Amino acid sequence: MSDRAYLDWNATAPLRPEARTAMIAAFDYVGNPSSTHAEGRAARHLVEEAREKVAALLGAEPRNVIFTSGGTEANALALTPSLAPGPDKPGCRRLLMSTIEHPSVRTGGRFRRDDITDLPVGAAGVVDLAALEACLQAAQAAEPASPVLVALMHANNETGVVQPVAAAAALVHAAGGLVHVDAVQAAGKIPCEINHLGADLVAISAHKMGGPKGIGALVKRSEAVHLGEVLLKGGGQERGARGGTENLIGIAGFGAAAEAAGTALARETERIAVLRDALEEQLLAASPEAVIFGKEVERLPNTTMFALPELKAETALIALDLAGVAASSGSACSSGKVAGSPVLAAMHVPPALAGGAIRLSIGPATTEQEIGTFITAWRKLVAGLSKIRRSVAA
Amino acid sequence: MSDRAYLDWNATAPLRPEARTAMIAAFDYVGNPSSTHAEGRAARHLVEEAREKVAALLGAEPRNVIFTSGGTEANALALTPSLAPGPDKPGCRRLLMSTIEHPSVRTGGRFRRDDITDLPVGAAGVVDLAALEACLQAAQAAEPASPVLVALMHANNETGVVQPVAAAAALVHAAGGLVHVDAVQAAGKIPCEINHLGADLVAISAHKMGGPKGIGALVKRSEAVHLGEVLLKGGGQERGARGGTENLIGIAGFGAAAEAAGTALARETERIAVLRDALEEQLLAASPEAVIFGKEVERLPNTTMFALPELKAETALIALDLAGVAASSGSACSSGKVAGSPVLAAMHVPPALAGGAIRLSIGPATTEQEIGTFITAWRKLVAGLSKIRRSVAA
Repeated sequence: MSDRAYLDWNATAPLRPEARTAMIAAFDYVGNPSSTHAEGRAARHLVEEAREKVAALLGAEPRNVIFTSGGTEANALALTPSLAPGPDKPGCRRLLMSTIEHPSVRTGGRFRRDDITDLPVGAAGVVDLAALEACLQAAQAAEPASPVLVALMHANNETGVVQPVAAAAALVHAAGGLVHVDAVQAAGKIPCEINHLGADLVAISAHKMGGPKGIGALVKRSEAVHLGEVLLKGGGQERGARGGTENLIGIAGFGAAAEAAGTALARETERIAVLRDALEEQLLAASPEAVIFGKEVERLPNTTMFALPELKAETALIALDLAGVAASSGSACSSGKVAGSPVLAAMHVPPALAGGAIRLSIGPATTEQEIGTFITAWRKLVAGLSKIRRSVAA
Repeated sequence: MSDRAYLDWNATAPLRPEARTAMIAAFDYVGNPSSTHAEGRAARHLVEEAREKVAALLGAEPRNVIFTSGGTEANALALTPSLAPGPDKPGCRRLLMSTIEHPSVRTGGRFRRDDITDLPVGAAGVVDLAALEACLQAAQAAEPASPVLVALMHANNETGVVQPVAAAAALVHAAGGLVHVDAVQAAGKIPCEINHLGADLVAISAHKMGGPKGIGALVKRSEAVHLGEVLLKGGGQERGARGGTENLIGIAGFGAAAEAAGTALARETERIAVLRDALEEQLLAASPEAVIFGKEVERLPNTTMFALPELKAETALIALDLAGVAASSGSACSSGKVAGSPVLAAMHVPPALAGGAIRLSIGPATTEQEIGTFITAWRKLVAGLSKIRRSVAA
């Protein structure tokens, strides 16, 4: 598919060459990292080296990195009423979460629906900090002895809109609460230091930054943060936080991808932002009525989500795919269906417009030629649409 | 480490060449299996091909295979009071489980400790079917409307002792209950057809059969079996049974390993059994007082667990490791510690003897030379021990 334009990096990124090399090297490690013999110790060393690299990307301590099977498990592990600021502290009774969180957060983990409060976002897709403050006060008044858990993503997977995590965290901490940040789409794309974010927990996933699918991590800012009842019990791996033999090859790939993404971050980000901005400029030139969601606020440099009134996403995606462009509607995740975007609904985008939402997301390997392939296909689509409109009007 | 003898296949098996090849091929699939474009559909196809291969190993329907991050997650997904014989049927109120289950089962999953009953095993490490019958009757009398869930492993990870799963399943089904079988150590080593086992659910793990670590499956015998509340919610993957982007590379490796293990099963099993039996013969010749656990009953052909009175496992394992032999004590799993075996404790092996338990487990790539390396090292160990004994007696 070398002549195709893969513009769906937010769904999953191609493997970085560094991850590939690290995984092939890991093939030859025969030991179980928990075994005490030489083969086991070598495998353990590989895991711990990767843990240091993942920790470094977030400016965290390696011992606070818990490897999971991906972002979904990391979110599920974090979102529990047994989460507490310390081992002897009371757990979180209430979960506040933004209405634009990823489905794995929106399900609320192990919180009961009645113990969850939604935090609205504004028209640009940014969480409403005034609403957060009001919710924190109400939660504190209702349960003064119990910390509130707030789940706020770093950057939205669909629109790319970056959330004011540090400002939110300051409010939450002032109210004695804890903050969980789903940074799956942000990590490796923009700076994501856990101390700058002010997050108590951060979830990340390897395959969004050029590592393999099926491996991720939940990262704690401090060792004191206490997960309480873990999700996978058994062998005592990950300091008791996550049972199951470590995904050695995946972890090696994750470490290499995290290191590569961190090293290249500033350079890649700049180049990607230039490409994305050029894409949007050409898009608007070809279809001035196109609406780009969240364009007025800070976004990931690699993401653009837009809609053209009267062009259905399903129609557009099929046409683009046939023209050699891999794009997605609101969310590529999950069921293989082209469904309405809950993120745009939360932003109160009219359903008719939201139904046409197309997301393009690029990465370090994206070329100008790929952008060109999309623009050519888009122009054809728009021309076809104009023709239909004229014939309907005639 | 090519001159070393890796005799710890039950902890984790080296990658099969077929798995390696399949994983390298999967590196080039850039799509997310849930995406609708060509790249996504290609990745989906890879997942479904692997699902067919994994299903074939167990004689199950591909649609009843749920990929998980390994055996621990598969067990955790299965062991829930919301498990039911059908979507509108009552869930399982009580869990009966053998005392020799893997730690990921022994934790009881989402059952409360009060709702769990232990099933004892005999001195040879085989579950007591009379006790099972009595427990089933008691559970039925206490809660006639609710099915009982019985967890019984196919083969024990430490001793290799094969459990009478089909006979147990017949008793359980006669009592209206459900059967979950942890077949992590058996699958790929002995026939493991889900219908022959009579299991309603079977947990398996790729890395015990030459696939990668970090991928496994929970397999249902019938689509009717209803998992109830799943562990990882979110994207709706795996027909809603397990959220999270699929571990594409791991799944490809799992499929290839399952296919290779299934194809070679009869041939490999025979060769492995011959090697293991020769190992035990030479072991007993070198140290006639050695006790081999479970030797009198059916065991996995690749496993031997034994102890020599007065030889501590820790001492032996360090000496063996230095002599180039990777072996393990009771369980290689988990904490990197050499701890007493709960399996041998359940078999009422005296602690002094159990403290010397050494497990050797071999596989398709094991050579006679490796067995020889172990025997040479073992003879030295035994000779050293005799010398110490003589000097103490003198």
